[in-house]
Amino acid sequence: MRAVVLLSGGLDSYTAAAIAKAQRFTLFALTIHYGQRHAREVDSARAVARALGIERHLELDIDLRAIGGSSLTSSAAVPHDRAIDAADIPSTYVPARNTIFLSIALGWAEVLGARDIVLGVNALDYSGYPDCRPEFVTAFEQLANLGTRAGVEGARFRVHTPLIALGKAAIIRRGLELGLDYGLTHSCYDPSSDGRPCGTCDSCVLRAKGFFEAGVPDPLLLR
Amino acid sequence: MRAVVLLSGGLDSYTAAAIAKAQRFTLFALTIHYGQRHAREVDSARAVARALGIERHLELDIDLRAIGGSSLTSSAAVPHDRAIDAADIPSTYVPARNTIFLSIALGWAEVLGARDIVLGVNALDYSGYPDCRPEFVTAFEQLANLGTRAGVEGARFRVHTPLIALGKAAIIRRGLELGLDYGLTHSCYDPSSDGRPCGTCDSCVLRAKGFFEAGVPDPLLLR
Repeated sequence: MRAVVLLSGGLDSYTAAAIAKAQRFTLFALTIHYGQRHAREVDSARAVARALGIERHLELDIDLRAIGGSSLTSSAAVPHDRAIDAADIPSTYVPARNTIFLSIALGWAEVLGARDIVLGVNALDYSGYPDCRPEFVTAFEQLANLGTRAGVEGARFRVHTPLIALGKAAIIRRGLELGLDYGLTHSCYDPSSDGRPCGTCDSCVLRAKGFFEAGVPDPLLLR
Repeated sequence: MRAVVLLSGGLDSYTAAAIAKAQRFTLFALTIHYGQRHAREVDSARAVARALGIERHLELDIDLRAIGGSSLTSSAAVPHDRAIDAADIPSTYVPARNTIFLSIALGWAEVLGARDIVLGVNALDYSGYPDCRPEFVTAFEQLANLGTRAGVEGARFRVHTPLIALGKAAIIRRGLELGLDYGLTHSCYDPSSDGRPCGTCDSCVLRAKGFFEAGVPDPLLLR
């Protein structure tokens, strides 16, 4: 069975894709260039797609800088050394990003005859980003069934979120069991011009905490 | 109050936008270049935006030809002289198009502080395209409330579909009451290289039928 997986180049989507592969899905990976500050992650998405033996890797451009509203798609500063358990929604929230990405994945899935979409959202994102919550995912499945020819003809789309209940350390442990090379991934929101992680943005801090709690070194930092 | 209106350059979205303007919304128009065969319509979207006195007109590219699955975004032939009351979904259906377009409109609306999105779907489209039905629109509103920061903070998004219960003739009559110049619009799915309508695709046939039933000439044909 075919599945479309949204592949960012970060460690979550890599792990989610690997879990779907272990479930014997044939994977079609979709990576969106959305004008993100950390476009470096797209190189990682390519490396990860190769490592996973993805059937096809589609890269698509949509420049969300035209819309703005996020420190990831504008000149606003990315927060550093923020308390990451803060309940507020951080400035790195990109308006409607997962809605947009899932919609594109849905269109491609319909063309491919796939009914399964894989999304690497997890419990940590979910504390801050509204479009990483289970009720959002369920609402998207309902929309997908109503808004497509396949749905009208009786198909039931499913958005798989194998990481949604996991913290970063549990995700890393699962990925290592599956033999993943996290040295291929990129997490930093605000890398230097040569692609090195800053170490202090939310994404770097969550990653470091995850590897620390998993009791393994981050291969990115061993290079 | 601000509203984001999806403006294609066709007569439906022009009329829907004019109705929203008459309701005193300040309009922000969004036009998507999606690799459609009839890219000519984008010139019409610009003309229509000018005529309406749109506050801002944003054009965004997303090349859905990479996904395909439609005669509007591939080399497959657009149907001509088709029985337009046929119940099947025509090949001009673009997988997940309205889901994708509404998602982008939602992101922009959130940044603008708008809670209203205007979509020119109508009863005729609705006979064939799943993503023009009222239940789809309602499901999108629910998704928008769940998947955005604004929604989490209590905003309730609304997708206005002022034409959804109208046939083409009624839409044209309403637009003429509002003083619209339909000579600015473009409807044909399969225009000649100099932009002239074919006269026989579904969109041309519905337009001709609408003007005929409204008892007025189509200004495009008087040129």
